[in-house]
Amino acid sequence: MSSRERIVEHSAELFRRQGYNGTGVKQIVAAASAPFGSIYHFFPGGKEQLGAEVIRSSGALYLQLFVDIAAHAQDVPGAFADFFDGAAQTLSETGFADACPIATVALEVASTNETLRQATAEVFESWIAAAAQFLAAAGIERAAARALALSILSLLEGAFIFSRSLRSTEPLHAAGASAVAAVRAALPA
Amino acid sequence: MSSRERIVEHSAELFRRQGYNGTGVKQIVAAASAPFGSIYHFFPGGKEQLGAEVIRSSGALYLQLFVDIAAHAQDVPGAFADFFDGAAQTLSETGFADACPIATVALEVASTNETLRQATAEVFESWIAAAAQFLAAAGIERAAARALALSILSLLEGAFIFSRSLRSTEPLHAAGASAVAAVRAALPA
Repeated sequence: MSSRERIVEHSAELFRRQGYNGTGVKQIVAAASAPFGSIYHFFPGGKEQLGAEVIRSSGALYLQLFVDIAAHAQDVPGAFADFFDGAAQTLSETGFADACPIATVALEVASTNETLRQATAEVFESWIAAAAQFLAAAGIERAAARALALSILSLLEGAFIFSRSLRSTEPLHAAGASAVAAVRAALPA
Repeated sequence: MSSRERIVEHSAELFRRQGYNGTGVKQIVAAASAPFGSIYHFFPGGKEQLGAEVIRSSGALYLQLFVDIAAHAQDVPGAFADFFDGAAQTLSETGFADACPIATVALEVASTNETLRQATAEVFESWIAAAAQFLAAAGIERAAARALALSILSLLEGAFIFSRSLRSTEPLHAAGASAVAAVRAALPA
């Protein structure tokens, strides 16, 4: 892995666990075993440019994770059940640290950094569109599929907040069951 | 309003809009028109002690808001519909800044500050318990009421993330409609 890739990967982990403002450039280069100046070599725009790249690349990886899980699922409700189950397992295995790759940053920057807010909005729109398309392909009318995608993703993101704070997978399991029930209710008979 | 109250109120606004790590003590005293040293006079434990008090007091106010809205709602599903509608209106009126009073901080501190994580967990447990009790009082079996409360609160918190990032109330309206549908489906006939 190149220095640049190591910087992006370790930044992604630090940002998702402790947020953007709580992560210093010094901590990133230390985690990535890279010289301090390398951040500004690879990212002339500094921490903000790195932040935008981390948001976009982490967001794309997370979308790919859903696509991979959905491809192996038994059926449409099963795809969401598997995704929530996997999220709960990852959360539990990482001591309730690794949940959504960009939610912490998204809330920090929503009212304070327009460049990074737009990066989070792009990622979220790509997730909503992908989930909506997946549901529409299963026969759910387009507007209903988008509303359902928004609800399922909201269940996931909200449950991540509760599960991380309470150090329990209970919220994720409850939210996952609700998501699956909503999908089942929306599918054509 | 006393200096102490002004410090707590302005800290609450800054924390919910830009997070805990993104808010400096200097910014808090400037917003509260208080002398710099007053933070340490009122909060000998400094920013962390102030943070814990802000989490608990904001959390209690937000719970009271739900209680007040529920008391004036037409019925049980209507209480949640009104709460989501009010949240969307507040968000829109504040330029998508004011959503959950403690979610940003909760994600920032979940893996980094055990004192503040516990404060967020106490608040979240109080909300879950209150919503579950409200649903149980309407005839929903206790375990199902708790799971439903977790799902409704997850819908709310997740939709706040999407609505703030996308600068749109669409996610909150979709999540609110899902919450109301889930409550209707769970109520005894």
